[in-house]
Amino acid sequence: MAYADLAHEELLALKAELEEAYGELKARNLKLNMARGKPGGEQLKLSLPMLDCVTSDGDLIASDGTDCCNYGVLDGIPEAKTFMAEMMDHDPANVCVFGNSSLNIMYDLVAGGVLYGYSGEPAWKDQGTIKWLCPSPGYDRHFRICETLGMELIPIELRADGPDMDKVEELVADPAVKGIWCVPQYSNPTGTTYSDEVVKRLASMPVAAKDFRIFWDNAYCVHDLYDETERRERVLDIARTCVAAGNPDRYFKFASTSKVTLPGAGIAAVAASADNIAVIRKRIGTETVGYDKLNQLRHVKFLKDRAGLDEHMKKHAAIIRPKFELVVNTLAAELGETGATWSTPNGGYFISFDGAPNTAQRTVQLAKEAGVVMTGAGATWPYGKDPLDRNIRIAPTLPPLEELEQALEVFCCSAKLATVESLLA
Amino acid sequence: MAYADLAHEELLALKAELEEAYGELKARNLKLNMARGKPGGEQLKLSLPMLDCVTSDGDLIASDGTDCCNYGVLDGIPEAKTFMAEMMDHDPANVCVFGNSSLNIMYDLVAGGVLYGYSGEPAWKDQGTIKWLCPSPGYDRHFRICETLGMELIPIELRADGPDMDKVEELVADPAVKGIWCVPQYSNPTGTTYSDEVVKRLASMPVAAKDFRIFWDNAYCVHDLYDETERRERVLDIARTCVAAGNPDRYFKFASTSKVTLPGAGIAAVAASADNIAVIRKRIGTETVGYDKLNQLRHVKFLKDRAGLDEHMKKHAAIIRPKFELVVNTLAAELGETGATWSTPNGGYFISFDGAPNTAQRTVQLAKEAGVVMTGAGATWPYGKDPLDRNIRIAPTLPPLEELEQALEVFCCSAKLATVESLLA
Repeated sequence: MAYADLAHEELLALKAELEEAYGELKARNLKLNMARGKPGGEQLKLSLPMLDCVTSDGDLIASDGTDCCNYGVLDGIPEAKTFMAEMMDHDPANVCVFGNSSLNIMYDLVAGGVLYGYSGEPAWKDQGTIKWLCPSPGYDRHFRICETLGMELIPIELRADGPDMDKVEELVADPAVKGIWCVPQYSNPTGTTYSDEVVKRLASMPVAAKDFRIFWDNAYCVHDLYDETERRERVLDIARTCVAAGNPDRYFKFASTSKVTLPGAGIAAVAASADNIAVIRKRIGTETVGYDKLNQLRHVKFLKDRAGLDEHMKKHAAIIRPKFELVVNTLAAELGETGATWSTPNGGYFISFDGAPNTAQRTVQLAKEAGVVMTGAGATWPYGKDPLDRNIRIAPTLPPLEELEQALEVFCCSAKLATVESLLA
Repeated sequence: MAYADLAHEELLALKAELEEAYGELKARNLKLNMARGKPGGEQLKLSLPMLDCVTSDGDLIASDGTDCCNYGVLDGIPEAKTFMAEMMDHDPANVCVFGNSSLNIMYDLVAGGVLYGYSGEPAWKDQGTIKWLCPSPGYDRHFRICETLGMELIPIELRADGPDMDKVEELVADPAVKGIWCVPQYSNPTGTTYSDEVVKRLASMPVAAKDFRIFWDNAYCVHDLYDETERRERVLDIARTCVAAGNPDRYFKFASTSKVTLPGAGIAAVAASADNIAVIRKRIGTETVGYDKLNQLRHVKFLKDRAGLDEHMKKHAAIIRPKFELVVNTLAAELGETGATWSTPNGGYFISFDGAPNTAQRTVQLAKEAGVVMTGAGATWPYGKDPLDRNIRIAPTLPPLEELEQALEVFCCSAKLATVESLLA
């Protein structure tokens, strides 16, 4: 029976029962982590051979003759541009391959707006309070960039087909709104993919600010969990859609190999219009002497091309698919009566969990006290404030299957207990 | 006889003679580069074995148990901190090891002042026009950071013992002056090292701005050309000197392995007070997911410790010392009569050349037209404007000796011709 339909006495009995179960779980002294989207050890092993692709006796010259061991090249060696362009479905001429962190490129481009501005408009620092649209639940590190830079973060409901576009279209009539964060495919954390309709509306909507930018973080563009065509989701390309709508400079597109090869030792890229790329190239020449070309070379030698990339990603999927399925099946078996809902993603790195209102913080706290670290409740919302206190991001990839099973036991018990407590409060 | 003492007819005859020589040099169709401080091929070979230090069958776990193949760690793995701390003569607890570019760390810290401020003072963007002291001749990329950020660059005469401290002390009474660029040892381009007295004055001088910072780019801290004790220059440590003067937060200290191992694939670090490091750590958590720990590990496995580093740097010195000596000897043999002067450095990457006033641009132009690219004249001054148009930075490390000899032939002929032209103008 649904918890919400239980009588007071039944709830009290259930609570006592759950507290006993929770106490037993706690006594196991677990130390498990489902907090962040980190690949597990088995996944890392897939890419270790990459480290043997660049050695002292190898050919370390890029296709254009650049010695990858010396200074030179700001925006990526040609073969790395070609590789990332294939991954990002973009013209290699308008792709810059930089260092190991796409988040760092995003930070630089938001900070660049604050410091220097875009499209010939004044720097954002000279335009008063800047506002930013944050489809939520979303990626905490995106939101933190804007918060750190003193912007006003506006949460937008993220629906099954993408952000609430009526709301977005209404808000971009305000010239202080300068950007929107998008994880358009296998979204973090909901796992959903924007519909073609949403992408078209984003690309074509009238926007008051000429210097408005869509930050299109296509972090999971090649991160399918399933091989079946009907379960492979593909978001419409924002670049071509913006061009078709007559707004070619509206977007910055991002991707990295962090969850393809080795996190922290990957390569990251930005793709944009020719004009935007020219701006980025110019700015980057002030900001650095260049990026690690040997690591770019290492990646291309290892993954080779789009076919090699796809083959490699299938191996990742084979490892993590059972973890996602374990989570979804366990939640279905355990939490059906609590009123909670959750996503069943076809790709990406997360399962988004929505408990009963006002239970997320308590659930995460209970799990933590029983040795299971989850992403902080609220983290998926601007300022860390989930208005309904119900969303929790589940990251199933890091723990081995048997540990994940234990962690889920703790999580489900915590969620149930938090729900009962909330109904009794 | 000195060119300046020649009669008009003698100058005309000399000019005709030089023009003929120049024409012959031009006919060689050379394509040589003495523009930037890039290591030569022989130097790069020294560090290729580093690439074999991190392979698929190696131990890729840091000393604190961190898996260098996965996410995690913002400010460097412990062994990389220890290594860079030894190189920088600093407490490892207050060293952050980041990516491949110390210039990028400097940019971030200057931009961080503009965006967020330091020492609890308002962000520089909210303090009106910011001024920055630029000992000159100096490093063009330092100056460009401040120029790009809209600051007012104030050139300060760089003397044999460091910047003109009377002038510096006078200028820092202005609260709009927020920083000074220093390459304190084997300075770029003069090769000189700040005296103890200058370092003490920098550390102890009264400064109007509480958020004033010395950007101490000790890029050449281990880049000696000579092994003899009397030719090894060592600058006084700015950190301990600032602490002793009661101004512990006044400095940021930088170094990298760009010219130790492989440029572009090195590791870079910042050292500072505990309070400043806390600020940096907090900010970097917004800006990136972390840096390439495998490359940090690769460096420590290869160079091991300070002793290993010193041994390695001796091999560099053996390769580039003859190049520096060739330049200095050639200039002495060829240009004594032109009135030009130049530095005879004991370390670093450059020789600073001062021709007769109003000849630097012309000299560089002539050299370029004869196939020898030099650093642009004026580049060593803020805004690229050398008030006397006389300074040229010579970077002798990249070309092999025989090419360097040819390049110098062109350079000397160009300098002579430019001098004669100037005397006849």
